[in-house]
Amino acid sequence: MCRWLAYSGTPLLLDTVLYKPQHSLIDQSLHSRMGVETTNGDGFGVGWYTEDGRETPTPAIMCDVGPAWNNRNLHEIADHVRSGLFFAHIRASTGTAVQQSNCHPFRHGRWMWMHNGAIAGFHEMRRELCLLVDPVLFPDIGGTTDSEVMFYLALTYGLDDDPPAAVARMVGVVERVGREHGVEFPMQMTVAVTDGVRVWAFRYSSSGASRSLFYSSRVDSLRRLHPDKAFLRDVSEETRLVVSEPLGDLPGAWHEVPESTYGIVQPGADELLPFVPQPA
Amino acid sequence: MCRWLAYSGTPLLLDTVLYKPQHSLIDQSLHSRMGVETTNGDGFGVGWYTEDGRETPTPAIMCDVGPAWNNRNLHEIADHVRSGLFFAHIRASTGTAVQQSNCHPFRHGRWMWMHNGAIAGFHEMRRELCLLVDPVLFPDIGGTTDSEVMFYLALTYGLDDDPPAAVARMVGVVERVGREHGVEFPMQMTVAVTDGVRVWAFRYSSSGASRSLFYSSRVDSLRRLHPDKAFLRDVSEETRLVVSEPLGDLPGAWHEVPESTYGIVQPGADELLPFVPQPA
Amino acid sequence: MCRWLAYSGTPLLLDTVLYKPQHSLIDQSLHSRMGVETTNGDGFGVGWYTEDGRETPTPAIMCDVGPAWNNRNLHEIADHVRSGLFFAHIRASTGTAVQQSNCHPFRHGRWMWMHNGAIAGFHEMRRELCLLVDPVLFPDIGGTTDSEVMFYLALTYGLDDDPPAAVARMVGVVERVGREHGVEFPMQMTVAVTDGVRVWAFRYSSSGASRSLFYSSRVDSLRRLHPDKAFLRDVSEETRLVVSEPLGDLPGAWHEVPESTYGIVQPGADELLPFVPQPA
Amino acid sequence: MCRWLAYSGTPLLLDTVLYKPQHSLIDQSLHSRMGVETTNGDGFGVGWYTEDGRETPTPAIMCDVGPAWNNRNLHEIADHVRSGLFFAHIRASTGTAVQQSNCHPFRHGRWMWMHNGAIAGFHEMRRELCLLVDPVLFPDIGGTTDSEVMFYLALTYGLDDDPPAAVARMVGVVERVGREHGVEFPMQMTVAVTDGVRVWAFRYSSSGASRSLFYSSRVDSLRRLHPDKAFLRDVSEETRLVVSEPLGDLPGAWHEVPESTYGIVQPGADELLPFVPQPA
Repeated sequence: MCRWLAYSGTPLLLDTVLYKPQHSLIDQSLHSRMGVETTNGDGFGVGWYTEDGRETPTPAIMCDVGPAWNNRNLHEIADHVRSGLFFAHIRASTGTAVQQSNCHPFRHGRWMWMHNGAIAGFHEMRRELCLLVDPVLFPDIGGTTDSEVMFYLALTYGLDDDPPAAVARMVGVVERVGREHGVEFPMQMTVAVTDGVRVWAFRYSSSGASRSLFYSSRVDSLRRLHPDKAFLRDVSEETRLVVSEPLGDLPGAWHEVPESTYGIVQPGADELLPFVPQPA
Repeated sequence: MCRWLAYSGTPLLLDTVLYKPQHSLIDQSLHSRMGVETTNGDGFGVGWYTEDGRETPTPAIMCDVGPAWNNRNLHEIADHVRSGLFFAHIRASTGTAVQQSNCHPFRHGRWMWMHNGAIAGFHEMRRELCLLVDPVLFPDIGGTTDSEVMFYLALTYGLDDDPPAAVARMVGVVERVGREHGVEFPMQMTVAVTDGVRVWAFRYSSSGASRSLFYSSRVDSLRRLHPDKAFLRDVSEETRLVVSEPLGDLPGAWHEVPESTYGIVQPGADELLPFVPQPA
Repeated sequence: MCRWLAYSGTPLLLDTVLYKPQHSLIDQSLHSRMGVETTNGDGFGVGWYTEDGRETPTPAIMCDVGPAWNNRNLHEIADHVRSGLFFAHIRASTGTAVQQSNCHPFRHGRWMWMHNGAIAGFHEMRRELCLLVDPVLFPDIGGTTDSEVMFYLALTYGLDDDPPAAVARMVGVVERVGREHGVEFPMQMTVAVTDGVRVWAFRYSSSGASRSLFYSSRVDSLRRLHPDKAFLRDVSEETRLVVSEPLGDLPGAWHEVPESTYGIVQPGADELLPFVPQPA
Repeated sequence: MCRWLAYSGTPLLLDTVLYKPQHSLIDQSLHSRMGVETTNGDGFGVGWYTEDGRETPTPAIMCDVGPAWNNRNLHEIADHVRSGLFFAHIRASTGTAVQQSNCHPFRHGRWMWMHNGAIAGFHEMRRELCLLVDPVLFPDIGGTTDSEVMFYLALTYGLDDDPPAAVARMVGVVERVGREHGVEFPMQMTVAVTDGVRVWAFRYSSSGASRSLFYSSRVDSLRRLHPDKAFLRDVSEETRLVVSEPLGDLPGAWHEVPESTYGIVQPGADELLPFVPQPA
């Protein structure tokens, strides 16, 4: 499977989050504690938004097929690029090819999408799921992963208008098709998706035993707990991380996203809501 | 577009054909004379059969995403592997991603397939063509090129039983779908396909202006013309090359495959026959 | 050989200079007009400074071993990163390995260095030239090119204090060692070097027949010549490009750097001065 | 550090040894049990000799910078190439660049060399050790690892004539230079070297706590222990493996090479001898 991280808040060097923490995402690429595999070395990607003065912000995405831990360019980017909203993903392939077009995050217009998990039986239902993608969107599918097909199904079902509803329909469709193929528990996912302003993060699996997902505590609470941490004084109260596994052991810093739940990271108060697939 | 080469005959080091000739395929990767592009640097592939004692011979395929001209591993393989039947291909992408799963030759079981050319309007008709692929074969499509979809359509239409008929149906279908999309001349192709014993090579385009394709003269004729060429004494009379462009300027060595024609390289006399797409 | 480009002036998206011009550096990677090779596909690099609030600005360097023309990450960076001082380089290897540690620009602290040309007979004098590098600097040599050894020799000879003098000594030493090895004309170079504030660009060869090098006209003159070019209104009068070959055909836009000459691009008036190797 | 494997015996598909065993070298690239790191994903290499009819056999070497476990080309080669003498190596970089020129095995003429371990303080003594390499050989050093410098020092000290003596002098020199730099225990190594006929394998460290090294039992003994193992009937009694860690749990199959010892795998009886660095 994979590991991922979504950051939203005070713009900072990617390095601060990707490399500096004790159990950073880069460390997780070699030594994941909670993942299905300890090694996540089958490619990586990082996508970030900058204030570039364009009308519609489109994220930059840098990805490559080697491991994150020894990638020179990732280190350079992390050491020199600042962003207030970025995704990072390290991949452990479950069988599909190790190539850039299979690296997360995926992008469509202003949207980014990344996934940890798998659709059980995807090889057999790939054709049927691809057929359900809007024919206008179909030619833009660039790779061969289940994760990207999930993204294109969500786009098909109205991601632009209502992300939680679109994801609920996508999951509903995958579960229906899966069951038609005799797969009892087709969906296993933690997903993050953003339009450049808000981040939606989902934790769900058909079997009710989902991959791990955590979000960071409110910055004001953390400051009271850890008045000595300089880092916490430098970031705004709007700052939030959502991660496959905690980046360190700071007491009180991390909360597990409950099963069948999604969160919204947004200007103002963030939200945590139940996630229910929409039968389709 | 691309350049390719098919060799069938006396087993020899790949190097002899891939690197040694004056205007070898490796030279063509930098300095193509007859291609649409002088540079063919968007990946390459080589596939070869060996007598490995298996019941069904399956070719080995080595490919990579960088240019052929500076690839260390290709040079090593060419310098140490002997084969009596091999394909080599250098790619100039017409837009699809530069990744191993888009490198030719493609393989399915004992079959190999490579292509120079393009389906005009492929981006728009990709979905429709993919739908025509046998659903059992569909999940094995690994890349995103028109070339690979052509291969899977040919497999769908009976490549195993009658390669020329299967290719004729594939072209007929592409031309029908193309015209339904308002594309007057959808197909541009030179294709080589082999089952490990025979090689079929096709030159065809909807517009009647196909990419270049040549085959080498009979070895016995060449020996009479060039009694001084040691190379010609070392190879059997069954030896034949089919190439996008000649590997050198040896007088009498190369013949152009006529428009709308296919050839069969096989034990015994080779053949050259008219190619007519089968309306579908 | 290679092609390169140095930009200094109003911060802009790298894309504006790297991809947009008619005969951009990316176009030159496939279709160089003035280079020794038309194709420069053996790796590339881009290095840029940003106002990142650090005390000593260090450039970011992104490089890779494939061709620039099909590199996804280069395109992403160029489309999203702004800089007021950046270098870009496309490589045509003259024999040394195609690997990231041989890609230009090279970096040492705040310095960047890139080179087009070669030291004739470098293979034979590599050991002797390496020995002349300051032993403290020697372990930082990461690759195997003549270009990087030239950089380390210039660092050894005082690049930090007086770049033209350091480069003059470096060339003097290479010419002496070369002649001791029986090489009449050892040095062929156009070099750009920067400390993040000023750019020095050198054109020199032992034989007096140097690779091409051009600089852009003063922006105020160009505005008078081409009052309709919006691009020229958006950049400051301090803006300057130094390039291996012109990026387009705009009349009056480009001037050749004379033989045995170096230029300084700096705040205030730029300078053009004779370059004389210092015998060593 | 790294893991490696040397095979000498009945020619077989590389796959039989590289992928098939329960704890194969490919498995060790993700899940090493005895290595310093569980993951060995910083490049790999395989080198093999074939009966290619040349006067001096030179090995083919295929290597790449990604992990072995997901490399398509390695799998293809392993599945189609037969050899009676081959080396394979998976790398976990201790800091030097991940590039092909740093991948093992290294080759010089008919010789191959691979190493697991490190020279402590190598960064500081690299210049001094490089100076000790024969100036005629120096320009052929292609990478930046301690392992390759060790190989070139061994070549300098007579590898062609007496491999154990050359390696003993190499270690003696490294220990002297190390101690001059204040490093008490400079050398940590298991090394395999071959001329295409014999294989020498060394286990040594200055501290007397060397990395693991094992050799396989005599085939005739194994046959008596495991008369049911078909594999053992297919290989000659001359067949031998030397490995960083055992490829499986077959009782009686593996013996540890003692500290400060080297073995010779050769036609006729193999040998195990004490290894003593030669003070230099």
